[in-house]
Amino acid sequence: MNGRPAPVTVIGLGLMGSALAGALLDRGHPTTVWNRTPRKAKPLADRGARVAATPQDAVAASGLVLACVLDYDALRTVLDPVAEAGGLAGKSLVNLTSGAPEQAVELAAWAASHGADYLDGGIMTTPPGVGDPRMMFLYSGSEAVFETHRPALAALGDPLFLGAEPGLASLYDSALLGLMWATFTGWLHGTALVTSDGTTATDFTRVALRWLNGAVSGFLTTYAPQVDAGHHPGDDATIDVQIAAIDHLIHAAHARGIDNSLPHLLKSTMERASAAGHGSDSYASVIEVLRDGATRP
Amino acid sequence: MNGRPAPVTVIGLGLMGSALAGALLDRGHPTTVWNRTPRKAKPLADRGARVAATPQDAVAASGLVLACVLDYDALRTVLDPVAEAGGLAGKSLVNLTSGAPEQAVELAAWAASHGADYLDGGIMTTPPGVGDPRMMFLYSGSEAVFETHRPALAALGDPLFLGAEPGLASLYDSALLGLMWATFTGWLHGTALVTSDGTTATDFTRVALRWLNGAVSGFLTTYAPQVDAGHHPGDDATIDVQIAAIDHLIHAAHARGIDNSLPHLLKSTMERASAAGHGSDSYASVIEVLRDGATRP
Ligand SMILES: NC(=O)c1ccc[n+]([C@@H]2O[C@H](COP(=O)([O-])OP(=O)(O)OC[C@H]3O[C@@H](n4cnc5c(N)ncnc54)[C@H](OP(=O)(O)O)[C@@H]3O)[C@@H](O)[C@H]2O)c1
Ligand SMILES: NC(=O)c1ccc[n+]([C@@H]2O[C@H](COP(=O)([O-])OP(=O)(O)OC[C@H]3O[C@@H](n4cnc5c(N)ncnc54)[C@H](OP(=O)(O)O)[C@@H]3O)[C@@H](O)[C@H]2O)c1
Repeated sequence: MNGRPAPVTVIGLGLMGSALAGALLDRGHPTTVWNRTPRKAKPLADRGARVAATPQDAVAASGLVLACVLDYDALRTVLDPVAEAGGLAGKSLVNLTSGAPEQAVELAAWAASHGADYLDGGIMTTPPGVGDPRMMFLYSGSEAVFETHRPALAALGDPLFLGAEPGLASLYDSALLGLMWATFTGWLHGTALVTSDGTTATDFTRVALRWLNGAVSGFLTTYAPQVDAGHHPGDDATIDVQIAAIDHLIHAAHARGIDNSLPHLLKSTMERASAAGHGSDSYASVIEVLRDGATRP
Repeated sequence: MNGRPAPVTVIGLGLMGSALAGALLDRGHPTTVWNRTPRKAKPLADRGARVAATPQDAVAASGLVLACVLDYDALRTVLDPVAEAGGLAGKSLVNLTSGAPEQAVELAAWAASHGADYLDGGIMTTPPGVGDPRMMFLYSGSEAVFETHRPALAALGDPLFLGAEPGLASLYDSALLGLMWATFTGWLHGTALVTSDGTTATDFTRVALRWLNGAVSGFLTTYAPQVDAGHHPGDDATIDVQIAAIDHLIHAAHARGIDNSLPHLLKSTMERASAAGHGSDSYASVIEVLRDGATRP
């Protein structure tokens, strides 16, 4: 694949699909596009994309087909007629539509039944980040599709192959988004706290980013092997010490009229870990409480 | 202050105080130590520390006094007799004991009434990180103390001065710890999710750290000025789109028996933002809901 850029088809030209097609055009891939609402193809046509009249024509144009529409229902609405006409046979289908792991597994089986190789993907950036090699695109499913089409996938961001199980990319996607929302909300709570005393969010965030990317990342690096070993020694900081420390946060935020739902939840989660015997263990031991969710309402 | 390292006194030789004294000794500061339980001074004495018999003797030995005991009550127990005997007059007291912002404000006034200059500090690492210049030590209060004793403070980590208001360091400390616990818990929830399908925590964490330090940090950098401007355009990703996406996480975690308290709280927080008219805004708009905490139970 060191020759000229391979032809690629992009189905779905919303914010994300348009960014994907744009990044492929930037790298010189002959790019065919299709969208339900045709006018969204215009800016891409101006940049050299071929606009297909139907999904069938779009799929026929390239060996590699990227799909990025709203959800799996929309995807089947678009691709079912193509599949029924035999148009998917021999194609590499890379699905970048977000969904649950189970949906990816089901779609992989459906694609196989129509003769297509299937790779599922999770896009770990927003449209402006597409094309930036620091941004991660997570893939799972057919490793042959991943390896064969790596140059095209690398035009979108940094492609990481997670494994043959098609649901893995979307499982990671959900797990990483959950981490993001938790981090966002913790950061906004802290920002509400310090800005109520006159600091700017920008000043606080400079310090918060050093904290996240330095010490906090170091703790995660220490705790991950503890989780894998099922052994969480609290030699740096114990759960019980942190339960005491979170009261300062709750008190300071309460005094400033800030919603404390998140710190209260964090405290009660730590208390559950302590009650389960992890008071002298590290924060990594909280995973035991989370894994026990099946026994709770 | 480019001459030889200045004398420093360290009061309190728990895990953290011992690490502080050790870092000062490593940089050649003549270091005097005192601890309620004297045997904890032994390893430091072996490394060259002078062991004071009383807090009075300890404070008398150096112009700069670092205090790091369990809490403010313990600190006053140790320092009240010194202050009453006039021993604090002319000293620079740097308090690295954790507490609430209000306690720092009160202690600064108490120190002033006894003739001492006061600097409050927050240690943003655990004892093994002390001495590492990448680790942040946050300070607020007397800028003169900070500037005069910068070389000694720099022996402990990277000293950052936040402002003259003595409570600021502890306010930041609480805010940053809150961010840390939220990030930890989001990471453990995601780790529980992917490990239930056979991935290791170590493999997931490698990806999670790239995500946190790359894209997620980029979002915080974008959102901070939005918070300062009070204007949160959702041109990258809207709250309503994220409400839809979090259902995939909740569904996948539920199917694997994982406790969903955190994602449920995050979802309801986003829903409150959406209900308040921020559905098409960015996640930064969630701060409006948090700031409205006074009106909630
Ligand atoms: N935006 C992000 O930051 C981001 C990040 C990661 C993943 N994603 C995922 O990428 C996918 C697309 O997101 P987006 O931001 O591009 O959304 P969007 O701007 O709303 O675009 C949605 C796309 O889906 C198409 N579509 C919707 N219903 C359809 C139907 N019934 N039949 C055919 N086409 C249909 C739309 O066609 P019309 O133009 O005709 O409406 C449009 O092309 C989603 O699964 C999203 O979760 C997005
Ligand atoms: N460890 C960390 O990772 C970390 C990080 C940031 C901040 N901090 C803060 O640093 C401070 C000390 O923490 P640490 O980890 O060193 O705790 P620690 O190992 O439990 O040590 C507590 C220290 O406080 C002293 N102390 C307790 N009660 C006392 C009293 N009534 N009178 C006199 N001394 C008393 C202890 O003396 P004895 O030896 O006689 O008991 C000991 O020196 C705390 O405020 C903590 O929040 C710790």
